[in-house]
Amino acid sequence: MRVRAVGVCGSDVHYYSHGRIGKQVIKGPQIPGHEGAGEVAGLGEGVTGLAVGQRVAVDPAHSCGHCEWCLTGRPNLCPKVKFLSTPPVDGLMCEYAVLEASQCFPVPDSLSLAEAAMLEPFQVSVHAANLVGMRPGETVAVVGAGAIGLGCLQVARAGGAARVIVTEVVDYRLAIAKRLGADATIHVEKEDPAEAMNRLTDGHGADLVLECTNRAAGVVQAIQVAAIGGRVACVGIAEEDTIPVDPHEARRKELSLVFVRRSRGTMGQALALVASGRADIASFVTHRFDLEHAAEGFELMEKYEDGIIKALIEP
Amino acid sequence: MRVRAVGVCGSDVHYYSHGRIGKQVIKGPQIPGHEGAGEVAGLGEGVTGLAVGQRVAVDPAHSCGHCEWCLTGRPNLCPKVKFLSTPPVDGLMCEYAVLEASQCFPVPDSLSLAEAAMLEPFQVSVHAANLVGMRPGETVAVVGAGAIGLGCLQVARAGGAARVIVTEVVDYRLAIAKRLGADATIHVEKEDPAEAMNRLTDGHGADLVLECTNRAAGVVQAIQVAAIGGRVACVGIAEEDTIPVDPHEARRKELSLVFVRRSRGTMGQALALVASGRADIASFVTHRFDLEHAAEGFELMEKYEDGIIKALIEP
Amino acid sequence: MRVRAVGVCGSDVHYYSHGRIGKQVIKGPQIPGHEGAGEVAGLGEGVTGLAVGQRVAVDPAHSCGHCEWCLTGRPNLCPKVKFLSTPPVDGLMCEYAVLEASQCFPVPDSLSLAEAAMLEPFQVSVHAANLVGMRPGETVAVVGAGAIGLGCLQVARAGGAARVIVTEVVDYRLAIAKRLGADATIHVEKEDPAEAMNRLTDGHGADLVLECTNRAAGVVQAIQVAAIGGRVACVGIAEEDTIPVDPHEARRKELSLVFVRRSRGTMGQALALVASGRADIASFVTHRFDLEHAAEGFELMEKYEDGIIKALIEP
Amino acid sequence: MRVRAVGVCGSDVHYYSHGRIGKQVIKGPQIPGHEGAGEVAGLGEGVTGLAVGQRVAVDPAHSCGHCEWCLTGRPNLCPKVKFLSTPPVDGLMCEYAVLEASQCFPVPDSLSLAEAAMLEPFQVSVHAANLVGMRPGETVAVVGAGAIGLGCLQVARAGGAARVIVTEVVDYRLAIAKRLGADATIHVEKEDPAEAMNRLTDGHGADLVLECTNRAAGVVQAIQVAAIGGRVACVGIAEEDTIPVDPHEARRKELSLVFVRRSRGTMGQALALVASGRADIASFVTHRFDLEHAAEGFELMEKYEDGIIKALIEP
Repeated sequence: MRVRAVGVCGSDVHYYSHGRIGKQVIKGPQIPGHEGAGEVAGLGEGVTGLAVGQRVAVDPAHSCGHCEWCLTGRPNLCPKVKFLSTPPVDGLMCEYAVLEASQCFPVPDSLSLAEAAMLEPFQVSVHAANLVGMRPGETVAVVGAGAIGLGCLQVARAGGAARVIVTEVVDYRLAIAKRLGADATIHVEKEDPAEAMNRLTDGHGADLVLECTNRAAGVVQAIQVAAIGGRVACVGIAEEDTIPVDPHEARRKELSLVFVRRSRGTMGQALALVASGRADIASFVTHRFDLEHAAEGFELMEKYEDGIIKALIEP
Repeated sequence: MRVRAVGVCGSDVHYYSHGRIGKQVIKGPQIPGHEGAGEVAGLGEGVTGLAVGQRVAVDPAHSCGHCEWCLTGRPNLCPKVKFLSTPPVDGLMCEYAVLEASQCFPVPDSLSLAEAAMLEPFQVSVHAANLVGMRPGETVAVVGAGAIGLGCLQVARAGGAARVIVTEVVDYRLAIAKRLGADATIHVEKEDPAEAMNRLTDGHGADLVLECTNRAAGVVQAIQVAAIGGRVACVGIAEEDTIPVDPHEARRKELSLVFVRRSRGTMGQALALVASGRADIASFVTHRFDLEHAAEGFELMEKYEDGIIKALIEP
Repeated sequence: MRVRAVGVCGSDVHYYSHGRIGKQVIKGPQIPGHEGAGEVAGLGEGVTGLAVGQRVAVDPAHSCGHCEWCLTGRPNLCPKVKFLSTPPVDGLMCEYAVLEASQCFPVPDSLSLAEAAMLEPFQVSVHAANLVGMRPGETVAVVGAGAIGLGCLQVARAGGAARVIVTEVVDYRLAIAKRLGADATIHVEKEDPAEAMNRLTDGHGADLVLECTNRAAGVVQAIQVAAIGGRVACVGIAEEDTIPVDPHEARRKELSLVFVRRSRGTMGQALALVASGRADIASFVTHRFDLEHAAEGFELMEKYEDGIIKALIEP
Repeated sequence: MRVRAVGVCGSDVHYYSHGRIGKQVIKGPQIPGHEGAGEVAGLGEGVTGLAVGQRVAVDPAHSCGHCEWCLTGRPNLCPKVKFLSTPPVDGLMCEYAVLEASQCFPVPDSLSLAEAAMLEPFQVSVHAANLVGMRPGETVAVVGAGAIGLGCLQVARAGGAARVIVTEVVDYRLAIAKRLGADATIHVEKEDPAEAMNRLTDGHGADLVLECTNRAAGVVQAIQVAAIGGRVACVGIAEEDTIPVDPHEARRKELSLVFVRRSRGTMGQALALVASGRADIASFVTHRFDLEHAAEGFELMEKYEDGIIKALIEP
């Protein structure tokens, strides 16, 4: 594939700064980037269903297809998965990449390649919603409004939430959340999120909470704003090593907490939502850089400031 | 409750014409009507949360609350359920009705009483969607576009369907379906529905089929248009005594068929969808009659013609 | 009901010692006990299906039957639930108690009244298994082997677990676990539970973990011994106010954690398992006292020693 | 693999007699057999986890691993699946077969190769139970007691059914069902199955019905014996082209019907159940033939008589 657009993910930034994520350590030169799109540059032997020049979005995961997890519907947990930009597999911040045909999803002309690249972070939101299940008419809280949170907000809207309430600490993100369909927003440094949620929902709380921050406090807050019988999806990757969960609150409400791992065969679902106009993922891209200035994109993403959601590298 | 609006349901018409539905037989004078709304006229002892004059929608079911089915989340299957207008329980086509407080759902000022009355047929569509589950991004087929089908169409739209395709034999209903959000429609007397579905979905079929006709042929069609791995909800009440199911098609696709029984604690969900603007149920009401002319509403509903969806009786 | 047998639950002991559990505070004289059985002493007007003298087990919960939670299959979360021995509702450690007919479950002659009383703690184990779901052939870990843990072990066995592994710190309980069907046991003070689980399962871990201790460390351990893709039910009531959850381990495995609240319409299921010989709950009762010596039963239950599982009060 | 044991499946017999199953037509010489086991005879390049001489059971399905169905947990519906003995893929009734490593499941010494071969029909029963879900304490009906029905009976027992009731027309099979754990049996030519089920369950019916006959009448019966709210799995392959489903009975009970397609990543589950002693599948094999006399095995399987369950070919 001729790479045309690659988003900078928080995990890319983390590898760039720390050289590792938990037990996954970078040991040699490593190309980052797994949120990508481009054009088919050539076809391997026997490949059908794709044509040279065709515009495609990339699913960064290639699972083995035949292990216990793959055969029981959890290919994202495949121990043999090859995931772009996770050591030792190289990523997409380069001019050409060799991919499996099954990783390449043709996109319609109506989508830009920037949007095509954003399908990967968006499918994480789709997978999170799948994991906990959605019912039309529910009240949904989204904790944290980065690219993943804004994706979750839109999946919740598309999934029939009667009310989506978004919490954040950055005004700019709350404004975008409003524009993308949030029914209400809560600035968690300006008001207590649990109190605000109670006020907004007449004491009911959120049936479904999609936690998308990178802090343990996000999960703590998610448990507080959940309704009795609520479900909580922990999508964000906390910086801390432990999350202090209140077992009494969790038991009183009979909460379920699901810790979400990447995504799971959701590229088609994500594409269908975007192509049919149910979700706007172009909004995620706030900055663009060419390959030579990619480092600036990484630096930008480390800032937690107004005006920044996502940097896109365009090789 | 001072009754203000009552929809004429197909089951009311059936009782009116035949005196029975299956084993449920009318043995004496019987007031029909279970799709109702009105104003609280008085409160029984100990009732809280309602006020005289308050506008409410009615859930026609009052289950026992403590049997095997109630305690395992299936109150719609409660053998002791009291259901308005099902013998020997009287219905709502009268001036005043005595109801349990838990059957009365306050509606916001933004809803008319006609809309409030339509929450009951709409909650059947909501329950059907709950039973089979919905995932954002799916392709959904709705077979039959009466009030239940139009409700299913809107629940599917609200639930994130990337594509909703509606089949019917009445042009008027197809036009309303289009207006309420159908992405495509199929007139089943003008083209073969299975072929049309194949054409519209590149051979994929519908992930979810919501069957809402009153004919066995509707279920047969539903099985044909379903995708491999699809789910079929049989919401319509077939006139025939048997449905000829093709086991080979059903097995090849590993289909699930669910036969839907009324609704299940879905009044809140239905209300949330309508009050938040996710569904338009005012469109269901095409004709209105006062109590003295109610018989005309029944006669009207027996006609399967352009221009007719639902008659509303306004006592 | 003429009360004949009442188990002493950990929550009874907690109220007895501390006067409160979290926000639930005892404000006046309060009769403890909610694990009970006896004989029908008299019938209220209109009661059918029960006869004076009949032996019954008691479901301590009476939910309202008509709120949002009751109607959506979660009566255990009903805000209006009346639960025996939870203030201000009195319990069963007395000679006679007035109960709703729907709380009384006739037991066959083959069950003793002691066993009938044990159906209540056992149904908590049944509910926990229902909440997380069981598939025949799985590997199940039970963390903690008190009455609830021993119940979970047996539900897991009955539910087709190919292997049940129990962890504990008391040798006596491990021995009983062995006798009740545990395939292997781990004494967590003698060997590291995560290492032992790895050894016993060839590195796979437990598909399902049922945590039944009263310590935060139990949940920490549960997360460690869970397989990739595992589900964890937190049944135990931790003494601590926070549980330090490792988000990286939980995310890497895409774990789900469910915090279990009492039980949910499971009396029939529990009774069916015991009456058909799939579970032995008589083993839970290790000590018996009459009503005058009930305090000794409470003191006994505070000891975490060999030989003690459950005290039964026999009025 | 050096083939050592291959079961004769009903589908093998059907191909043998008719040359086709529905749209799947045999066009040239075709080796039958997909229920097989043997010894690893040699390893392809890069294969790990297997050793020459190792005893293995065979999963006859090899799905593509990367299509929409594979990635969403339904590899049995993969349109590109290669399934042994389904044209144009050859089967196992020969001396040596070339298989994917992921199709070969090592079996412990405690299992004979005949048992290993029976894991394939057994995993169909396991998959059926997975599809509809099982809860400990339920009442389960198994309609038809061939190898699949006897497998379903045992999965139901292993899955915690409080009562398993088996219906059949062959006395021999009812006797084996009794021996394998059926709590009651019904000879459907000697008594009406719906009446018998009512009598046996005090009018409740079966929460779960596993239909395993090759007749439409089996499904009709399954709907009749199902409880209110029951689930029906149609595992059998009906000879007829339509099944006359009663929509009123199905709707009154809010039944779900699932049509089961082969199996789905269930070899590990099946093996765990058998190896741990939860199921006896050796009983399926009633007759054995060498490769030269395989035709006799086919003729035998066409007889629906006492003494016959399954023929095993031993090359």
